[in-house]
Amino acid sequence: MHPYRQIVLASRPKGTPTAENFRLETGSIPIAADGQVLVRTQYLSLDPYMRGRMNDAKSYAAPVSIGGVMEGEVVAEVLESKHPDYRQGDLVQGRIGWRTHAAVEPTDLRRTETGVNPVTTALGVLGMPGFTAYSGMKVIGQPKPGETVVVAAASGPVGSLVGQLAQLAGARAVGIAGGPKKCAYVRDELKFDAVIDHRAGDMPEALAKSCPDGIDVYFENVGGPIWQAVLPLLNRYARVPACGLIAHYNGPGATEQDSLSSTMLAVLRRSLLMRGYINTDFVEDHYDDFMRDLSPLVASGRIRYREDIVDGLDNAPEAFIGMLSGRNFGKLLVKVG
Amino acid sequence: MHPYRQIVLASRPKGTPTAENFRLETGSIPIAADGQVLVRTQYLSLDPYMRGRMNDAKSYAAPVSIGGVMEGEVVAEVLESKHPDYRQGDLVQGRIGWRTHAAVEPTDLRRTETGVNPVTTALGVLGMPGFTAYSGMKVIGQPKPGETVVVAAASGPVGSLVGQLAQLAGARAVGIAGGPKKCAYVRDELKFDAVIDHRAGDMPEALAKSCPDGIDVYFENVGGPIWQAVLPLLNRYARVPACGLIAHYNGPGATEQDSLSSTMLAVLRRSLLMRGYINTDFVEDHYDDFMRDLSPLVASGRIRYREDIVDGLDNAPEAFIGMLSGRNFGKLLVKVG
Repeated sequence: MHPYRQIVLASRPKGTPTAENFRLETGSIPIAADGQVLVRTQYLSLDPYMRGRMNDAKSYAAPVSIGGVMEGEVVAEVLESKHPDYRQGDLVQGRIGWRTHAAVEPTDLRRTETGVNPVTTALGVLGMPGFTAYSGMKVIGQPKPGETVVVAAASGPVGSLVGQLAQLAGARAVGIAGGPKKCAYVRDELKFDAVIDHRAGDMPEALAKSCPDGIDVYFENVGGPIWQAVLPLLNRYARVPACGLIAHYNGPGATEQDSLSSTMLAVLRRSLLMRGYINTDFVEDHYDDFMRDLSPLVASGRIRYREDIVDGLDNAPEAFIGMLSGRNFGKLLVKVG
Repeated sequence: MHPYRQIVLASRPKGTPTAENFRLETGSIPIAADGQVLVRTQYLSLDPYMRGRMNDAKSYAAPVSIGGVMEGEVVAEVLESKHPDYRQGDLVQGRIGWRTHAAVEPTDLRRTETGVNPVTTALGVLGMPGFTAYSGMKVIGQPKPGETVVVAAASGPVGSLVGQLAQLAGARAVGIAGGPKKCAYVRDELKFDAVIDHRAGDMPEALAKSCPDGIDVYFENVGGPIWQAVLPLLNRYARVPACGLIAHYNGPGATEQDSLSSTMLAVLRRSLLMRGYINTDFVEDHYDDFMRDLSPLVASGRIRYREDIVDGLDNAPEAFIGMLSGRNFGKLLVKVG
């Protein structure tokens, strides 16, 4: 077995990605040039945004090229440093991609700092997904005491934190999740005020029943039928931070209800605020606050999280494909090292 | 001829309103009770939002009931006052509706204050339409020097001010209007940087050509095909204040391009901000600034405006119906008194 392994984009998916869109490549371990650092991946984070990078579409980030290494953030260990800022054994993180090793510039790395919390949290509740939830709620959602906050994918790394932050702000947290196991987790472990199983068949009615005073913040990370169920319940001056649209990533998914008019008219008639963002938009102004506020809450158990760890880089494509249809349960990570 | 006349909603329109949806009623002049003020309408303002009030739909305001007087703001003269705050001859304005006279509480009135400017400006550039443009740009649009601002209905009372405010902020103003006469006015009188005739048949291409650096602020007051043309040109972090959707008021107007997915994905991928509002949302915080900033600019001719004045309350329905298809040219007013 070759020590170096990487997964590249073999072809662009049409709709839902399949195993054929990925290719495993092997080779020898890269060599660090002067000024570079050689790292070995411990954990790779798999996140829905990666589906967007597989398309050849204009977005906030360039697409992965055909034959290029799949993009992704990892936690890694420094094997060899030819730069004064890092030493062998240092724990770092960076957007190194789906591979076992990399020789990189120090500017592509930062030190992993999770305090007393496990290193895996650097890719989840104390990493990009956590900061996505935190900054979207702080800058756009701004929940107030007594308001109702709704979030889908509520057992996932972003949704679970959105609901818990809503409750810390004194708001009601209503979660949507798929299947009885995830719903039980959201209700019993995360302690959301209400949870709706979107696979139970009566999602719009159940959501309306769980939101008797309407919805003040809808944290949009899925789109599709859930947006259609949320739309009629949004109160005047409701805020909609939008950080993901997993229901749309595999194609337009147009339905009879997929009408632009109804959304635009609701935005107008109810003075709604919809704002798309990517977590990096807010790093400069809010990242330090995030780490200062969240680290102790995670360490004390006041903020809860769940991880779904898959073993081996070779299994990353299958795990990623499964995540797009909700088969993961918690923050999806691949244990590589 | 009866001295008192009013126009009521005879039936709810299906799609585009017709003359049959309105009914002229006559009678005797109302009598002011103690504490009330009797006023005679001089000018009635006709505005697109009134189309929404004709529907029985949930919105920021209750619909006009069948047989109820059509809603609208007027400038009026006090004929008789039974309240110490007002005297005969005072010029006032308020939401008195489509009628020649009214006996109203003083809380429904405020003094018309346009300084050296004509009283009609109280219903246009220095009234609700002007404040809609001003507050939407100040709070949501926030144009910066060198940015590109696009607005439709650019010869109208809101659009014309949006473009002029954009230029005062150092941004480029690109207007969309219907037909050569309105386009010439926008280009030659209002001095927008570019103007596109949406009736010329190549609107999306012409818009793209007029916005070589993309669009940073799209002031949404129409929706429909113009939104579809704007969407691909919106830059990252673009802002979309939405105060009107005249293209949607007569029905969903769904087209093949009327896809929610493309709008939602653009909001996400380009970190767009869309925010619906009604001008009253911003009155408390921004109305005084508006009057202080705009009055002298209008008086000096630095801010230009145009009025389209129709004579006689009986002609209000026809003028209103025409406005919904763009037949007015400038702020539409009915001279009643």
